[in-house]
Amino acid sequence: MKQSKLYIPTLKQTPSDAEAVSHQLMLRAGYIRQVAAGMYAYLPLAWSVIRKIEAVMRKEMEKVDAVEMQMPDILPADLWKESGRYETYGDNLFKLKDRHDREFILGPTHEETFTSVVKEGLNSYKKLPLVLYQMQEKYRDEDRPRNGLLRGREFLMKDAYSFTANKEQLDVIFNQMEQAYRNIFDICGLNYRAIIGDAGAMGGTDSKEFSAVADIGEDIIAYSDDSDYSANLEMAASKMEENPKEDKKELEEVDTPDVHTIDTLAALLKVEPSRIMKAVAYMADEKPVMVMIRGDYEANDVKIKNYLGVDFLREATPEEVTDVFHSVPGFIGPKGMDDDVKVLYDSSLVGLMNFVVGPNKKDRHFINANFEDITDETPEFRDFRVIKEGEVSPDGHGHIKFTRGIEIGHIFKLGTKFSKALGANFLDENGKSNPLIMGCYGIGISRLLSAIIEQHSDENGLIWPVSLAPYQVHVVPIKYNNDVQGKLSDEIVELLQNEGYDVLLDDRKERPGVKFADSDLIGIPIRITVGKKAADEIVELKIRSTGETIEVSKDELVNSVKILLKNQ
Amino acid sequence: MKQSKLYIPTLKQTPSDAEAVSHQLMLRAGYIRQVAAGMYAYLPLAWSVIRKIEAVMRKEMEKVDAVEMQMPDILPADLWKESGRYETYGDNLFKLKDRHDREFILGPTHEETFTSVVKEGLNSYKKLPLVLYQMQEKYRDEDRPRNGLLRGREFLMKDAYSFTANKEQLDVIFNQMEQAYRNIFDICGLNYRAIIGDAGAMGGTDSKEFSAVADIGEDIIAYSDDSDYSANLEMAASKMEENPKEDKKELEEVDTPDVHTIDTLAALLKVEPSRIMKAVAYMADEKPVMVMIRGDYEANDVKIKNYLGVDFLREATPEEVTDVFHSVPGFIGPKGMDDDVKVLYDSSLVGLMNFVVGPNKKDRHFINANFEDITDETPEFRDFRVIKEGEVSPDGHGHIKFTRGIEIGHIFKLGTKFSKALGANFLDENGKSNPLIMGCYGIGISRLLSAIIEQHSDENGLIWPVSLAPYQVHVVPIKYNNDVQGKLSDEIVELLQNEGYDVLLDDRKERPGVKFADSDLIGIPIRITVGKKAADEIVELKIRSTGETIEVSKDELVNSVKILLKNQ
Repeated sequence: MKQSKLYIPTLKQTPSDAEAVSHQLMLRAGYIRQVAAGMYAYLPLAWSVIRKIEAVMRKEMEKVDAVEMQMPDILPADLWKESGRYETYGDNLFKLKDRHDREFILGPTHEETFTSVVKEGLNSYKKLPLVLYQMQEKYRDEDRPRNGLLRGREFLMKDAYSFTANKEQLDVIFNQMEQAYRNIFDICGLNYRAIIGDAGAMGGTDSKEFSAVADIGEDIIAYSDDSDYSANLEMAASKMEENPKEDKKELEEVDTPDVHTIDTLAALLKVEPSRIMKAVAYMADEKPVMVMIRGDYEANDVKIKNYLGVDFLREATPEEVTDVFHSVPGFIGPKGMDDDVKVLYDSSLVGLMNFVVGPNKKDRHFINANFEDITDETPEFRDFRVIKEGEVSPDGHGHIKFTRGIEIGHIFKLGTKFSKALGANFLDENGKSNPLIMGCYGIGISRLLSAIIEQHSDENGLIWPVSLAPYQVHVVPIKYNNDVQGKLSDEIVELLQNEGYDVLLDDRKERPGVKFADSDLIGIPIRITVGKKAADEIVELKIRSTGETIEVSKDELVNSVKILLKNQ
Repeated sequence: MKQSKLYIPTLKQTPSDAEAVSHQLMLRAGYIRQVAAGMYAYLPLAWSVIRKIEAVMRKEMEKVDAVEMQMPDILPADLWKESGRYETYGDNLFKLKDRHDREFILGPTHEETFTSVVKEGLNSYKKLPLVLYQMQEKYRDEDRPRNGLLRGREFLMKDAYSFTANKEQLDVIFNQMEQAYRNIFDICGLNYRAIIGDAGAMGGTDSKEFSAVADIGEDIIAYSDDSDYSANLEMAASKMEENPKEDKKELEEVDTPDVHTIDTLAALLKVEPSRIMKAVAYMADEKPVMVMIRGDYEANDVKIKNYLGVDFLREATPEEVTDVFHSVPGFIGPKGMDDDVKVLYDSSLVGLMNFVVGPNKKDRHFINANFEDITDETPEFRDFRVIKEGEVSPDGHGHIKFTRGIEIGHIFKLGTKFSKALGANFLDENGKSNPLIMGCYGIGISRLLSAIIEQHSDENGLIWPVSLAPYQVHVVPIKYNNDVQGKLSDEIVELLQNEGYDVLLDDRKERPGVKFADSDLIGIPIRITVGKKAADEIVELKIRSTGETIEVSKDELVNSVKILLKNQ
């Protein structure tokens, strides 16, 4: 391919409004351009890489008998109302009406659509299992689109859906998919972790998330420094540690005027935050719930929501603390709380004695409280908190560390949530009707592109893994219109193309410095410079990743390229 | 591929709500399913054919140095307001707002987007010409979506855009694109015509349309029975035929009470419709225009609109005939018409004498009128009418016939309409700033799929051209779970796959009749039946298109398949 026929609008300066490295470099290297906030044009080089990523995925999907098809982008709103997600997705859905005033959405994911399209044909166990997938634009009206393709409003996904007759079939496919995903990420040259994710959001029973390690990542991964354990911060189980035993003291009520945070309360009463039992008031599906937790820990909404099995969880407003909990904001506690308020106890409180807790009276707190002082019931302790760095790993091996990651893939055992909601049933061996058991499996293709760049670049630009590079070799003549250099360049391009390589020829009339800088920026693995020694059929090979250069003759060229590309 | 792993929900009955053959067959053969009116799921077989069509297109685009990229589907409404098409597209646009109340549309075509994305990088003649394309969903909120993929609301397009420095460059690319399109349609096995289309709608200067001949087609193609001439009915030039000379008679005004059609007027006055000069009152961009035309011809809105160069043209309402034209509906004519009404004369009127014409008086008509009786000016005659079957072909060779066609592709010389509207300029050799000269080139991929089926099917189902078949060979064992038949079937699949063929194996537990019917329905070019003679390694080959069958041994099989597929 001649570079003059491509559109690669490289920039000399880093765009000031781009923060993420991948965003900056894709703009600078002429890979993408923004059309609207969170909506991007994939210019020829980016599209070429995406098509290579798609080819890798197709190959892996074929291995596990997943079959490609394609759904529409515009979906009837009714389908999402039936599953209940029209409401739970809320403002994140792009909504529209047609000329006849019928309601539609732009699909952010396709569980409902696949379930409704296949249910007519999957009426018997004989037709199961079935795995279908598509590669398609998805839409999500993010409140704050950012970091280029990392959090866009229109993005590319490979989404797969499995339909099975029983849990065993689902387990087999789930495991095959995990292996396929690992293969894909390995071929893409990614440093990633497979972590325990939050299946709750999809209404499923089990899930695994794939996260590419990167500082720009929005997810915090909690992992063990001495085992394979990895989990999303929200999902990492926090091991119950018993509080030390001590002599029981006498309950007292003291003045704590205008105290509104754990820190000021601890300072005023001269106790550690770990001696305070704090209360967090929630509205769960609009019903009051109070979560008690040790003052040095934070409540974990995901764990609370999954335990309660509710659709919506939010902190109660001060007005609600007054009107619904019949308490005082800042001074709330379990003692004398109304029966219709559900009270949950975090396991950080196990064995806690002589603690500080709110008495539901303004400007007052209990000190030296014990459980029997505040509740008649025997508390059940559960894990409702956010794990902290340094805690013992939940698997008992090593201690927890945090790192940041980019969610690049997610696989879910969905169970029957969607098949039940949409009436997708099959007849089993005994002629009995059962809901289909489903799984769903997604990779964010455009986000993957960004994640790869976050891990594969330097100050001069992109550095593509050979498997995904838009071109494997960049032939750069110093002067293409010089007869000798031009002829040799053309010959080299032909030689390499005949070997099956994708070759880019810089035929532009630009200064060598500009050509070299552009070549580094767009990140092609091997650059071949055709210069003064062209008369002797000698060229220079430069390896993008190491900066190493060697001189080779035309005769040795194909072999050298072959070896260098294999060793990348 | 094993058929049990695919999703092919064939139907025994033709769906009653599908009229077009392609729509019926794609539903029956399990190729598509409707998700909402005009929005379809492409099931695995359809998607496989579409990917093959796309591969054909990529190859042809590469030959003409067109480069693939991808634009977002959601586009800012502002871009379309700038070009003026937000208004002209009207209700056909899907419109939506994001959570911040910003206006967007779903792109039905991408001239504005490409122009705006490339203009920053195409600032010099050195970077021209450039041809970019994409393959993507497009959206059009059709009032009446129908005939399956033929007129959908979400559909697939390959759309290309060229940017050039001058008309000569544009002409070269336009001609290369025409050849590329012809190659694509030839490979798809289509009977099509390249016809003169209406460039006006795109604001361009020249266009060519490709139309697949089919009874279900919505376009009427006017073609010569003795030359290459083909045009859309609206665009076919009607050759001027002079009316016969005769002796001039005296103007008279006569009673024609309650006469509202040409036919009743002709009957009442005992004259041929060809002796009546009828007037059609229009509002063109809300200004009054009257088109005079011979009573036996119909006015052609496209020709009138293109001549006037207006955005909107519609027939005037009876109220407007009264209030704006100051005339009487049904009795309107040029005599004494207000100066602010533009009067146009169709060339069917050249030399007409002693004709009937409206006098702008209720229930009255002039008879024996001549031009000097009705206007002080010398009329200029132009072609404003719809051509009729049997007329002399505009190129002078043969006579006009009509046939129906499906628009499958369209190429336009756009000129500077979009570059001027969006300020996309480049510096020429002399350092002077000029607007980019553009072309656009589109093929409706999903419509192409339907058009191919309209031309390639019989009462038993689809008949794919080898180049596009989802699988080239269908191996159908009578009993796959019979050891001998199963083993031979597997061996045959492997043999053929090793030769590079896409092979489908019917491994289902179904009756042979069901398998054969399904095989015919889904339209794979060659069926190999593995039955009783499997023990002797003899199988039956059936050619889908002819129904012909032959017996061959396993040893001859690859060779036979090779020859048969080559001869299709």
